[in-house]
Amino acid sequence: MKGEFEFIESIRSMFPAPEGVEGIGDDCAIIPQQEGWETLVSTDMLVEGSHFLMDDITPYQLGWKAAASNFSDIAAMGGAPVGSFLALALPHDLPVGWEEEFLKGYRDISEEYGFPLLGGDTTSSKDRVCICVTVLGKTPSGRSVRRSGAKDGDLVCVTGFLGDSAAGLAAILHGYERDEDVKYLIDKHYLPHPRVREGQALAAWPGVHSMMDISDGIGSDLHHIMEESQVGARVDLSEIPLSKQLRSFCSRYGLDPYEFAAAGGEDYELLFTIDPEAEPDLELPHTVIGTITDGPELEWDGSEKDYMGFRHF
Amino acid sequence: MKGEFEFIESIRSMFPAPEGVEGIGDDCAIIPQQEGWETLVSTDMLVEGSHFLMDDITPYQLGWKAAASNFSDIAAMGGAPVGSFLALALPHDLPVGWEEEFLKGYRDISEEYGFPLLGGDTTSSKDRVCICVTVLGKTPSGRSVRRSGAKDGDLVCVTGFLGDSAAGLAAILHGYERDEDVKYLIDKHYLPHPRVREGQALAAWPGVHSMMDISDGIGSDLHHIMEESQVGARVDLSEIPLSKQLRSFCSRYGLDPYEFAAAGGEDYELLFTIDPEAEPDLELPHTVIGTITDGPELEWDGSEKDYMGFRHF
Repeated sequence: MKGEFEFIESIRSMFPAPEGVEGIGDDCAIIPQQEGWETLVSTDMLVEGSHFLMDDITPYQLGWKAAASNFSDIAAMGGAPVGSFLALALPHDLPVGWEEEFLKGYRDISEEYGFPLLGGDTTSSKDRVCICVTVLGKTPSGRSVRRSGAKDGDLVCVTGFLGDSAAGLAAILHGYERDEDVKYLIDKHYLPHPRVREGQALAAWPGVHSMMDISDGIGSDLHHIMEESQVGARVDLSEIPLSKQLRSFCSRYGLDPYEFAAAGGEDYELLFTIDPEAEPDLELPHTVIGTITDGPELEWDGSEKDYMGFRHF
Repeated sequence: MKGEFEFIESIRSMFPAPEGVEGIGDDCAIIPQQEGWETLVSTDMLVEGSHFLMDDITPYQLGWKAAASNFSDIAAMGGAPVGSFLALALPHDLPVGWEEEFLKGYRDISEEYGFPLLGGDTTSSKDRVCICVTVLGKTPSGRSVRRSGAKDGDLVCVTGFLGDSAAGLAAILHGYERDEDVKYLIDKHYLPHPRVREGQALAAWPGVHSMMDISDGIGSDLHHIMEESQVGARVDLSEIPLSKQLRSFCSRYGLDPYEFAAAGGEDYELLFTIDPEAEPDLELPHTVIGTITDGPELEWDGSEKDYMGFRHF
């Protein structure tokens, strides 16, 4: 493993700061402020053994995924990218080249989404990798989309397909044969694509009332919108968008696809509620899966089950 | 241990967001931007077993210290407080009340320095506490003090006394009797007071050329200023300010106080270089310990030893 300062220098050369911003190299990064804008900030921690297993995930995938879940938080409020900060605690006995592969994954997603790495911390850990990413975004003042704006009668919508990531995780944990469907699902689990551009488009569209990203499954995440907005919701299970790969995987192994789609985490799709009268004008691809009610319950049409999402404790 | 959402709610009620800022509760915090200002950001990770031992430090002290090292990074550039973000990975078998005491320490220093907690992440860890704090500050545009501004002929200055924290750590690790001197040194180690107000005062004073905080010992930290500024330095060991408690402790146990003062970490004092002609006008209490040279070496007057600071790897 490289020495601390050599390691920091190699990161610094991999991640040049954009014009006008001071990135890696001083006690703090320096980012200009701009009248009429707001800064968005979110932070997430990933610990080996709790959030990932070193035998399952490659360092490249881990670097990608650590950033993805954070970029998704900026997407969830409709933010544009500003930059990210990466804190890493690494054991001394990592395989040769592990850090470089991790940083490549982190760099590739950062470049794809336009989030420059502006700083961080590198330190040692006795025996487990620990990663903390803090991400900064921005929106014009008052234009970020909160969890708290849902109104009785709103349509509940999502982007993309749900459940692929959770099914990919199940396939990994149970050692299912890696056919084309399973490879697709595992890719969705390890290399998720957060909806940063879609979040910005939604925030610029006047019909959206509330939004968040789907990290713990809609069964859990929708409760956050309900609580913050003081509303209820009814979700029609049969309307939840499922990929053909998820359907085919579930039918082969006799599994309930809605268990993955409603209660499975880490899709990093957007969950949002919109004015029903404006819905025909929404050009962004989306699926209506239910409606906001005057609450307080979350009802599932088409199921006896109560699909709860993932809990961290 | 409380459930995740209950725990977040208890944190939310302990840390109300200031007027005009959205803190805990949504996907991101929202902080207004202001023309003519720059945002400063820094992040630090602390891992049980590498940075602290649970048997030695109380949860209150740990909460205080985790914030202190970050606030010190804002101080190091002359920033005013904006807020902090706290990511915590906690094992399930923590002693009853551990989190509450940790949060009290974190809250007390946050209130003392005026950094509101604006967000974070709480998650589980198999067996070790892991803490990542990200801190935001601000300075008027172009007024933050970098490591890169030191000039040949500058006076090298520090605030406060050096070495107390490292001597406190040594006293803990070697189990020295906790007399008044040792208690003072241990307090300096566990409950450090970063120089946020002093950093702001220095940044507003035109004679300061470069600045950083002392986290790894001046033997290591001064190298950062030298590298970023492309200069050398000469430090007069006998000018390094030592507390009477450190002197008395070292004389009792036959230890070299300069080993602690020059090579010991976590003082969280400020290290800065200033225009020698302006020095008489600097009202802030400080000690001149050396001069910047045209480099590239760090020379120690009054010693044969090469005092190197702490390295993280």
